[in-house]
Amino acid sequence: MSAPRHLVSIDDLSLAEIQGLFRHAQAFAQDLRGWSHQCPGLISASLFYEPSTRTRLSFESAMLRLGGGVLSAAEMSSSSASKGESLADTVRVVGSSYADVIILRHSSEGAARLAAQYAPVPVINAGDGSHEHPTQTLCDLYTLWLECGKLEGLDIVLSGDLRYSRTIHSFVFALARFGANIVCVPHPGFEMPEYVVTRLRDEFGVEPVRADVSRLGDLASASDAVYLTPQKPHQLSLFTGEAGVRPELLKVDALYVTRPQTERYSKEEMARTGFVHLDKQRLAADPLRNAVVMHPLPRRDEISGDIDQDPRSVYFKQAGRGVPMRMAILAFLLGRIDMGTASAPADVRSHAVTVGSNPCPNPTCISRTEMRHVLPRYRLASRLPVRASCGYCDAAIAAPLVGCSTTLHFHEADSSLVRRIRPDHLVFFESAAQAQALGFRPAGQATELV
Amino acid sequence: MSAPRHLVSIDDLSLAEIQGLFRHAQAFAQDLRGWSHQCPGLISASLFYEPSTRTRLSFESAMLRLGGGVLSAAEMSSSSASKGESLADTVRVVGSSYADVIILRHSSEGAARLAAQYAPVPVINAGDGSHEHPTQTLCDLYTLWLECGKLEGLDIVLSGDLRYSRTIHSFVFALARFGANIVCVPHPGFEMPEYVVTRLRDEFGVEPVRADVSRLGDLASASDAVYLTPQKPHQLSLFTGEAGVRPELLKVDALYVTRPQTERYSKEEMARTGFVHLDKQRLAADPLRNAVVMHPLPRRDEISGDIDQDPRSVYFKQAGRGVPMRMAILAFLLGRIDMGTASAPADVRSHAVTVGSNPCPNPTCISRTEMRHVLPRYRLASRLPVRASCGYCDAAIAAPLVGCSTTLHFHEADSSLVRRIRPDHLVFFESAAQAQALGFRPAGQATELV
Amino acid sequence: MSAPRHLVSIDDLSLAEIQGLFRHAQAFAQDLRGWSHQCPGLISASLFYEPSTRTRLSFESAMLRLGGGVLSAAEMSSSSASKGESLADTVRVVGSSYADVIILRHSSEGAARLAAQYAPVPVINAGDGSHEHPTQTLCDLYTLWLECGKLEGLDIVLSGDLRYSRTIHSFVFALARFGANIVCVPHPGFEMPEYVVTRLRDEFGVEPVRADVSRLGDLASASDAVYLTPQKPHQLSLFTGEAGVRPELLKVDALYVTRPQTERYSKEEMARTGFVHLDKQRLAADPLRNAVVMHPLPRRDEISGDIDQDPRSVYFKQAGRGVPMRMAILAFLLGRIDMGTASAPADVRSHAVTVGSNPCPNPTCISRTEMRHVLPRYRLASRLPVRASCGYCDAAIAAPLVGCSTTLHFHEADSSLVRRIRPDHLVFFESAAQAQALGFRPAGQATELV
Repeated sequence: MSAPRHLVSIDDLSLAEIQGLFRHAQAFAQDLRGWSHQCPGLISASLFYEPSTRTRLSFESAMLRLGGGVLSAAEMSSSSASKGESLADTVRVVGSSYADVIILRHSSEGAARLAAQYAPVPVINAGDGSHEHPTQTLCDLYTLWLECGKLEGLDIVLSGDLRYSRTIHSFVFALARFGANIVCVPHPGFEMPEYVVTRLRDEFGVEPVRADVSRLGDLASASDAVYLTPQKPHQLSLFTGEAGVRPELLKVDALYVTRPQTERYSKEEMARTGFVHLDKQRLAADPLRNAVVMHPLPRRDEISGDIDQDPRSVYFKQAGRGVPMRMAILAFLLGRIDMGTASAPADVRSHAVTVGSNPCPNPTCISRTEMRHVLPRYRLASRLPVRASCGYCDAAIAAPLVGCSTTLHFHEADSSLVRRIRPDHLVFFESAAQAQALGFRPAGQATELV
Repeated sequence: MSAPRHLVSIDDLSLAEIQGLFRHAQAFAQDLRGWSHQCPGLISASLFYEPSTRTRLSFESAMLRLGGGVLSAAEMSSSSASKGESLADTVRVVGSSYADVIILRHSSEGAARLAAQYAPVPVINAGDGSHEHPTQTLCDLYTLWLECGKLEGLDIVLSGDLRYSRTIHSFVFALARFGANIVCVPHPGFEMPEYVVTRLRDEFGVEPVRADVSRLGDLASASDAVYLTPQKPHQLSLFTGEAGVRPELLKVDALYVTRPQTERYSKEEMARTGFVHLDKQRLAADPLRNAVVMHPLPRRDEISGDIDQDPRSVYFKQAGRGVPMRMAILAFLLGRIDMGTASAPADVRSHAVTVGSNPCPNPTCISRTEMRHVLPRYRLASRLPVRASCGYCDAAIAAPLVGCSTTLHFHEADSSLVRRIRPDHLVFFESAAQAQALGFRPAGQATELV
Repeated sequence: MSAPRHLVSIDDLSLAEIQGLFRHAQAFAQDLRGWSHQCPGLISASLFYEPSTRTRLSFESAMLRLGGGVLSAAEMSSSSASKGESLADTVRVVGSSYADVIILRHSSEGAARLAAQYAPVPVINAGDGSHEHPTQTLCDLYTLWLECGKLEGLDIVLSGDLRYSRTIHSFVFALARFGANIVCVPHPGFEMPEYVVTRLRDEFGVEPVRADVSRLGDLASASDAVYLTPQKPHQLSLFTGEAGVRPELLKVDALYVTRPQTERYSKEEMARTGFVHLDKQRLAADPLRNAVVMHPLPRRDEISGDIDQDPRSVYFKQAGRGVPMRMAILAFLLGRIDMGTASAPADVRSHAVTVGSNPCPNPTCISRTEMRHVLPRYRLASRLPVRASCGYCDAAIAAPLVGCSTTLHFHEADSSLVRRIRPDHLVFFESAAQAQALGFRPAGQATELV
């Protein structure tokens, strides 16, 4: 039996596979009730360490509509976990014969990546802390694709809390992969985090440009808008204005509104007011004339009920599409649909941390919250200067010094010598003292790097 | 797609439809395990904002026995709702593609009516606060129909807590519609509420008569029994006694015992003692000789285990019939069974409250507890004097003054002029000051009413 | 309809039936996904008064893989029970039409036995307090049978907390029935309870012998090991040593490691340290060379992750076998598989306690925690001296005096006169005063015993 495919991150799917999923979702949506012979005898297990009725029900509906069975553990944190069982053991047991696919929701970033290492069946990430929620991202992309006919070159406005929404971050990376342009219109204080912008630049060549969004009216009044674009001239031409002048937003294909993630706010952040409230009047802004309005739901007050009937409001349709999209995901991972020539993306390689302590700086990463059966791992994004991230939660590792586990030399992280260390021999140090305590010495005459 | 049928209140079904459901339930009960090809590919969602394992399992069993799938959210109040999602949004999403029918339990009266306004699929009320629980009522009627062969003209004794049991109130109205006679034998202090009796009189012409129930022995010793009857002479003949004398209860077709709804009691009410306790000795009372003993279960001490084996005790059978009855309800609302010529009842019209504040006096009505996506509505039971009720929870609106939203005049609620106001133009006022603050003036020379 | 078979205790199955279940489990395991036409239209109900996600999911997976439907009540104690419903009533209702088999988990010992008295459908005990968990026992036996090819004559080491693990106690009795030898290597202070050893001796002729387990090394360093064997010479020959000398453990077929049941520990017990921790080094002990390592899971630290890949470690396989084993159990109790000539064991007779108070000494026995619909019952293990146990929880009844309910005489429990009392006429007394208060007098010239 070959190793199962997992869906931990949207990056686990190639663009061709994503488009294949769109087409299958579309076919499933033709008649949701007509596919109950697709997966008879197969079972999904919802392992939810954090409650999320919405997400759980959409997966379970998808599995039932495919004719499969459903095991539901909506309150994992109060049961098995309370007996001290590790996540690794839990997925090994559940994947041993209980279920044919595991749908995991967890409060620790990286939990699904860990589960995928151990589970003998496919693992689907249904949200891991503030990290990823790839099936939500796929539903969002699918809605854009259906409503706008394509993804490349679209102009998407993101509005509201761009800092804490995991949905938004995965969505942004995926939009960049598909070549869409992103206009950030954050609520002040809730701007897109710097690491997201850095990654967009590093991986997709996306360059942020200050944008003039005054035509959006009240919706953007206080915002410091940023236009994130692959900088191809034909796309910038969507904006008026000369070089050096802020491009002006003239038309929007989709307006994506987010919920303030108040459950993650500090006291100070809770006190801020004036969040976006989209209503009939604000939706009348000229650039929004043909824009679809999206929202991952649940909403609170950021979208007024008075636009629910507006044909541009597609958020309920968007939610409804979660079922056929998840049918496609399940059927794909269970090997029940054919993806034609679409090939999987190259595996993102990660390396075990074999020397020293866990370099992941994120205290809620699964590599820190799960005490057993977890070996810290890292990924290398760039070798000069060294830029690495946690192999579970993707948090950037900030190490001023790095060493080589075979030569036992250490260097400044931006030293050109670092390039000669094999990726799987890298060791991260916070200080020279830490390096020396582990038996490493400063590189001087170092030559014998492997 | 035409608008879906809902089952929010027993009044949403015509008598012919109810009898059609009885016949289908009977067919399903012949072989509960033989109907799994009735609803393949269809899914029900149990959205329970209040826990009720019994009710939830009976619906889920019914759906499974029909071959459908089941989504179960037994703890809604601790999940979606905690993220601030409105009930209206929840049912729009769940009904968008997750489920083909929604089974809703909620602590606010009127919640199911609200859900039915928004859900694109049928909504079944599985209990809304202390308001209605129509499928329990249908199971009770079905058991009577099976055990007694008919409903019209039966003499049904209701015993115990008649004040707080939602089951009892819906049951009483339904019995009245079917022309059964009701003998109330309440525990002192837990009499049938006045508004129930008023509605019986208004809508069904039922007249309460003081009854002599001394033949029931201890069971009724302290009770102030009332006989509710359509007053047809041939029914009163069931009682001995001349005009002006209390009719005496001679024979009972069914004895319906209720559980003290202690979860709704005040401290004072909790202190009361001497609740009915039906046992072998009390069941030996002469009028009960051929009576079936019913109870909606769970029971506490109101029925002794020593009569469980008595052939008159049908409460476990009654509970068991919940499954075939709910199979019939689900199959009907999902369009899977044919009701022949039985037609739906006329819609009960309700009107939006367009001026002033919500006139519903019930603080736990969904129109007060759900802050968004709810427009207060009212129904008009009588135009002279004006008698109106909340369009969600049916609570009587007590307004001494009413106005017309087009003329901006207001009147005493019992003024004959009120009859000239169009039902959808009515405005309710608590005081003249309130009316005047809203720009209304007292009717004097008012003539131009529309 | 004949009375349903239940699985409350492993004793409810004959050895032939257990072996029949093994063979069916093996057949199911060939292709877990190929049996969905075995139980269409049938429904199981998981009634869990104590949370146990693992056990619940394995039963539900088994039912789904058989093509049946599943009702799930993971939190019974917070719902029906809170409305004051008795367990007896709950299973009568759920068994009336909701479900075709009930899977019960409860915190009171004997709960499943009580449920089996009332439910009209099969009841499966999924754990009743610290009493029994027969399906876990069956999975353990099944794994031994698969791994070792037989059960008779095997040498099984039990390690760790042998006091509080209900799994271990049932397992031990079953091993004795099958003629396996048991080597107890308890953590100090957590030895096998005396009543277990007594019952082994009484019922299976098993004799405890002090054993020399020094070859197990650190694993057993502090233990006071005991060898429980049917004392047949060919089995003792597995040990070296002459008569009178402790037999020495040379080879082990299976090492069964248990989790410290800390949830049942006193403060004092919690303070103890040095629990077994099985790792690579300890597993290298010579007698374990061909031993399979078993654990009921979840584990905490008693088994190190470094032996997870060792071919002797079968605990994940063992967990995975829970599904085919439970498929066999469900299919058997639902009458869907043929057991050939295997006949049921003789019923274990229990007698109602008709006089005096409940003699069960266990305060968490269902006969004490369930206030209604429970008649205390007892079983008679031996008539001289009188040795009786609770008919629900099997706790030994300690009564110095016993009487006869027809003669109203009482005796010392070890008087030879006791033998003449009919088993169903026995009455248990703590003192002469208690006996006399109930109208009994001391036996002197007593002759007219029946």
